[in-house]
Amino acid sequence: MKFSIERGTLLKAVAQAQSVVERRNTIPILANVLIEAEGERVQFRATDLDIEIVDMATAQVERAGATTVSAVMLHEIVRKLPDGALVTLSEDATSGRLTVQAGRSNFNLATLPKEDFPVMASAEYASNFSVPAATLRRLFDKSKFAISTEETRYYLNGVYMHVSEADGGQVLRCVATDGHRLARIDADLPQGAGDMPGVIVPRKTVGELRKLLDDDDMKIAVSVSETKVRFATPDITLTSKVIDGTFPDYTRVIPQGNTKRLEVDAAEFAQAVDRVATVSSERSRAVKLALDEDRLVLSVNAPDSGAAEEELAVAYGDERLEIGFNAKYLLEIASQVDRENAVFLFNSSGDPTLMREGNDTTAVYVVMPMRV
Amino acid sequence: MKFSIERGTLLKAVAQAQSVVERRNTIPILANVLIEAEGERVQFRATDLDIEIVDMATAQVERAGATTVSAVMLHEIVRKLPDGALVTLSEDATSGRLTVQAGRSNFNLATLPKEDFPVMASAEYASNFSVPAATLRRLFDKSKFAISTEETRYYLNGVYMHVSEADGGQVLRCVATDGHRLARIDADLPQGAGDMPGVIVPRKTVGELRKLLDDDDMKIAVSVSETKVRFATPDITLTSKVIDGTFPDYTRVIPQGNTKRLEVDAAEFAQAVDRVATVSSERSRAVKLALDEDRLVLSVNAPDSGAAEEELAVAYGDERLEIGFNAKYLLEIASQVDRENAVFLFNSSGDPTLMREGNDTTAVYVVMPMRV
Repeated sequence: MKFSIERGTLLKAVAQAQSVVERRNTIPILANVLIEAEGERVQFRATDLDIEIVDMATAQVERAGATTVSAVMLHEIVRKLPDGALVTLSEDATSGRLTVQAGRSNFNLATLPKEDFPVMASAEYASNFSVPAATLRRLFDKSKFAISTEETRYYLNGVYMHVSEADGGQVLRCVATDGHRLARIDADLPQGAGDMPGVIVPRKTVGELRKLLDDDDMKIAVSVSETKVRFATPDITLTSKVIDGTFPDYTRVIPQGNTKRLEVDAAEFAQAVDRVATVSSERSRAVKLALDEDRLVLSVNAPDSGAAEEELAVAYGDERLEIGFNAKYLLEIASQVDRENAVFLFNSSGDPTLMREGNDTTAVYVVMPMRV
Repeated sequence: MKFSIERGTLLKAVAQAQSVVERRNTIPILANVLIEAEGERVQFRATDLDIEIVDMATAQVERAGATTVSAVMLHEIVRKLPDGALVTLSEDATSGRLTVQAGRSNFNLATLPKEDFPVMASAEYASNFSVPAATLRRLFDKSKFAISTEETRYYLNGVYMHVSEADGGQVLRCVATDGHRLARIDADLPQGAGDMPGVIVPRKTVGELRKLLDDDDMKIAVSVSETKVRFATPDITLTSKVIDGTFPDYTRVIPQGNTKRLEVDAAEFAQAVDRVATVSSERSRAVKLALDEDRLVLSVNAPDSGAAEEELAVAYGDERLEIGFNAKYLLEIASQVDRENAVFLFNSSGDPTLMREGNDTTAVYVVMPMRV
């Protein structure tokens, strides 16, 4: 194998590959990236056995072939090479070493046999469709904060992507919850997605996927089976196992009868919550919301260190209500609001509260109260 | 005590105070800042018993007085208040609480009695002089990387600031070393500093001092005694104990007879060292420098992972030489060079090497070789 490639192109491909590689793993070859050169293209493939990423790059291939080399080390080397450099990678079949050469720099890296590299089995996908990058970004960005980190509740360690009913039509929906808060985000159902099986996309996959979604105009090809999900741009294919479990029936958690409506400037609200939460040293300290006609008083009481109170002018016309929330959860939810005012719908101080942006029902959040 | 102060002014004063406070300490009052209001000025004082910082700020004082409150919490609160806010701090003598009020935000913080706050004893300073901030910044910025972190060699855990002879005249000199490398930086002797006792300024003090030195035109008032050192701007006074120990005779370490002269572009050299060091997984891997007429080959050999080699065009006219160094030390020293080429003076592969910027002898670095 021998090919030459522009440093920027190589860096992009290797950066994406190495981020999938787990820093600590007991199987040596999983630290490596599989490089396959043929025609005018080079493929860079990395995996942690659950996720596989394949990056395609254009190169001047002099001699086709394949080998594997440490992904992290190759990435570090390429990152440190000067911008604009032409990099030549060639494998010496006798020594089994990969030479990386650019300008007056020469690197000679240990390889492992390409035959040992675990290539993910290809799957039969039940459903194939295309979604604009901006749509996928919204679906996952607005839901991922609610993913559970409790390993025992493994079926909550991801975003549940599925087809659902909303307002009489079908939508592509992402839901995440950790039992304390929930995010439910909807998008128009893409053509061909109607019979997609619901899948739980693991947290790490959500993170890797995010890197493919920066270009608003890009169309992402999505393929879904019962066990795998695949997201592809023209250059990059990300394949991931999905979580083997049943996502709980989240619809029961979303309150339907909450009528006490508070409307508040989301940024002002978030800043006030952040400020009053300062006096508490514990992370989970409750913030108390006391609601009265067009008036919200946020307060925190931490006997050891102090107390804080802040008043906000809001739109509220229902009866007096006092309700407590974990400050961190309130902040995270309020920071999802980016266009309009935050609208909270309360029932009582013991019931889950619903939040959304203005009257937009395509992004709905639920947060459980805390006793204060 | 009651006073009102502009949020930006308060933030600056409290930020400097809280950075001296140790995050973990067993004496509760050391977590607090002592606030003293009188006339039109408020003083913010914090200490870790080794370093004391006093910040002066202008405020509208309505009622003189003093109290102590958590430095970190006060800083967090002020940081989160909106820019331009007027902040009112008032102590309720009955409840012993400090109220912080700004706009519609109200905080009520626990205090500890001002009488319990350990104010550092004032000292008789043997020497008082004034140094431009830019000069002090250079003296400490260029030497601090060489401070030892070995606690057993406590007398190396700081920068040795003293008066020395150079080129027949006297200079203000800062030296730091950890036994593997050494930095010796000179500046013109300020008026009145001639009889200053040599002091070892602790690492943490060097860090805190750095924050006072951003304004090039500022004059810093320096006071030195056998046991303490003080740095003062018009608003801020930083007082620190010095390390109670004897700094070793560093002059014996600085080679005088090194004649093999290498001149190299410092940035190119640093980048090349950084690149070749990539192939080694160990942090302390040696980089080999092979010198020949106007030619430098840098190489690293890590049998497990690979090898790297890079050639640089340099100015070198002496006999062939091979010498190894810790890559990290070489990088740190090369990154001190900011104006001219780096000049290395070698003797043999077993002897300490000297480095300086061009022919400037006011900043000299020594690095010990490693066997390769």
